[in-house]
Amino acid sequence: MLHFSELHRQGEARRGQILLKRGVIQTPIFMPVGTFGAVKTLEPRDLSSIGAQIILGNTFHLFLRPGLDIIELHQGLHRFMGWRGPILTDSGGYQVFSLAKLRRMDESGVLFRSPFDGSEVFLGPEESIHIQKTLNSDIAMVFDDCTPYPAAWEQAKVSMERSAGWAERSKKAFEGSENALFGIVQGSMYPMLRERSLKSLIDIGFDGYAIGGLSVGEPKDQMNDIVKRITPQLPRNQPRYLMGVGTPQDLVYGVACGIDMFDCVLPTRNARNGWLYTSTGVVKIRNRKYRDDLRPADENCSCPCCSNFTRAYLRHLYKVNEPLCARLSSIHNLHYYLNLMERIRNSIERRSFDRIMQEFDVSPTYWPSEIEFEGDSWNTVTIRSNNQ
Amino acid sequence: MLHFSELHRQGEARRGQILLKRGVIQTPIFMPVGTFGAVKTLEPRDLSSIGAQIILGNTFHLFLRPGLDIIELHQGLHRFMGWRGPILTDSGGYQVFSLAKLRRMDESGVLFRSPFDGSEVFLGPEESIHIQKTLNSDIAMVFDDCTPYPAAWEQAKVSMERSAGWAERSKKAFEGSENALFGIVQGSMYPMLRERSLKSLIDIGFDGYAIGGLSVGEPKDQMNDIVKRITPQLPRNQPRYLMGVGTPQDLVYGVACGIDMFDCVLPTRNARNGWLYTSTGVVKIRNRKYRDDLRPADENCSCPCCSNFTRAYLRHLYKVNEPLCARLSSIHNLHYYLNLMERIRNSIERRSFDRIMQEFDVSPTYWPSEIEFEGDSWNTVTIRSNNQ
Repeated sequence: MLHFSELHRQGEARRGQILLKRGVIQTPIFMPVGTFGAVKTLEPRDLSSIGAQIILGNTFHLFLRPGLDIIELHQGLHRFMGWRGPILTDSGGYQVFSLAKLRRMDESGVLFRSPFDGSEVFLGPEESIHIQKTLNSDIAMVFDDCTPYPAAWEQAKVSMERSAGWAERSKKAFEGSENALFGIVQGSMYPMLRERSLKSLIDIGFDGYAIGGLSVGEPKDQMNDIVKRITPQLPRNQPRYLMGVGTPQDLVYGVACGIDMFDCVLPTRNARNGWLYTSTGVVKIRNRKYRDDLRPADENCSCPCCSNFTRAYLRHLYKVNEPLCARLSSIHNLHYYLNLMERIRNSIERRSFDRIMQEFDVSPTYWPSEIEFEGDSWNTVTIRSNNQ
Repeated sequence: MLHFSELHRQGEARRGQILLKRGVIQTPIFMPVGTFGAVKTLEPRDLSSIGAQIILGNTFHLFLRPGLDIIELHQGLHRFMGWRGPILTDSGGYQVFSLAKLRRMDESGVLFRSPFDGSEVFLGPEESIHIQKTLNSDIAMVFDDCTPYPAAWEQAKVSMERSAGWAERSKKAFEGSENALFGIVQGSMYPMLRERSLKSLIDIGFDGYAIGGLSVGEPKDQMNDIVKRITPQLPRNQPRYLMGVGTPQDLVYGVACGIDMFDCVLPTRNARNGWLYTSTGVVKIRNRKYRDDLRPADENCSCPCCSNFTRAYLRHLYKVNEPLCARLSSIHNLHYYLNLMERIRNSIERRSFDRIMQEFDVSPTYWPSEIEFEGDSWNTVTIRSNNQ
């Protein structure tokens, strides 16, 4: 079950909500990534306390460990990990290619060696959907063939067409589920392939549409170009999800193009490496200059980390390898991301999203060239994208 | 400032309270160990939520990292680590011998190489007290010479006398502080040396008395023998602290002998190794039999770990090296220890502590042989120790 409503719009940016069985998600939204049934170092109550509305689980990882039987005993991922809100699961497609040693790949799916115990495992659309049904995620993703970067046109086309076929089989395998299923637009860096991919997906019909295969090594401009061209073509009356992206600036850019949902490991991975996102830029907490810095990580932040601890303390924890450092930094960085999304939602309601775009150097020049500006205010503009 | 009141007594076991500048501590109490300015993986709010009243900080570690200047900038350890309750600091004596490479030791103190950067560092009574004054701990400990085990009588005697001299210098260096200072009884496994040590300390006069130099490799019976003989001789009107001990059974035994305060790394260290204390014994969470176990770690526990997660989930986290496992296990084990102390406190008030002794196999036979039992109830007995 999924119902999407667009509540407000400013340019292509939209403020919406997604109604799911387990609650309502206010969009645009960022989803913290809980690979192995936990957002690293954090409990579900930590996630709730910083405003997480929906989290992401990894099908590939959970299938291999702890294995489906254990998840099934818990009646799904929610009870297993103690998170009562909505969960989106990826299909495992991306991980099969990035983490496993491939053995064979054909139309039926992918045979690979488990990176954990070396055993042979097969994953195809039917298997991925079966796993996601068992995880009982509120939003499942179709199994897709993740095109490597760079890819020649012919290679990208074959890969995209395979993904389209797998999307159809995923939809069929998903029949009978009460949860939602999203299609994934592939097609590498070729807008025409992307558009063909989208058309096939719309013909099949999904509860939402994602843009996949980005942030895989391509230059930022190329990624932005695809997002800018493709997003406005995704159906308006359904959620739009940009997979695996990205930096705070990427999120602002994505929203400006009409994206509703994001996920990325950046805030938590960077936290573990001592990179803290703040209102005045990145703080690399290991730096010696923070040794005696009594300010919180971010002076304009109200998160549990910034309310209680100094940069000097965080740096000390980092230097002595205290696991609490990764935890506090993860809380702070996720709070930063979730708070940014909340600011974005509020700004779209108040028609002041252009100010956040300015703040993050997402200038109108990144915009489809067809946008007409009235005066210097971006927010009264009607966008006519040449892709629609 | 420190004021101790004994509120209830059952045999030698006593239920008291310690009034400190930063709050009242209900005794008997267990103090979680926060070596580097953090109880590993936990925030102060976690400690409060499971009933921690006072925590322990390590002078040796904090002196070396982050260094005194950083602590001083925070006006002490409390603000540095964000813990508002009372803190006890050890003197660094034990760590100097167990962790550092000794360079020279004489009456003035100990010259050693920092295990972190190899630099030469000197620590004597004056230095230790200066550090503890800067840490601004509510309870400081005298700098002592920790006698290794085993030690011949003569070696133990020399070491004990050195500790006695250092205790006097510690007291003198502590003058002017508003906080409390405890003496430490040494003397290895020789009751007569222990008694002489105690006499010197009482002559100097402290706010409380600790038994040190135990749990250093000696057989349990020998440790128990020292605790049983020495504890009742410690002044009744002041707190008694058994340093670095121990297992849940050790705590029950110590309380039965008249101890008020304990600290130990066992609950947190064991947590990180996947050992969970439960009402039905130790659960080694890595064991395969917990793979599909839907029960909480302890079915009779109300801690945040047991309220939300199954053994199967904890085992999964352990197997995938998720840091959340150490955190949840630390919360559970510390809750177990703190809850045990609360049960002990309540039981002494209700004169039913003998039932907890039975539960932990601390039988009256461990008791000074002079104890007379009326019927089979231990709680009506007057103890006449041959040490008094």
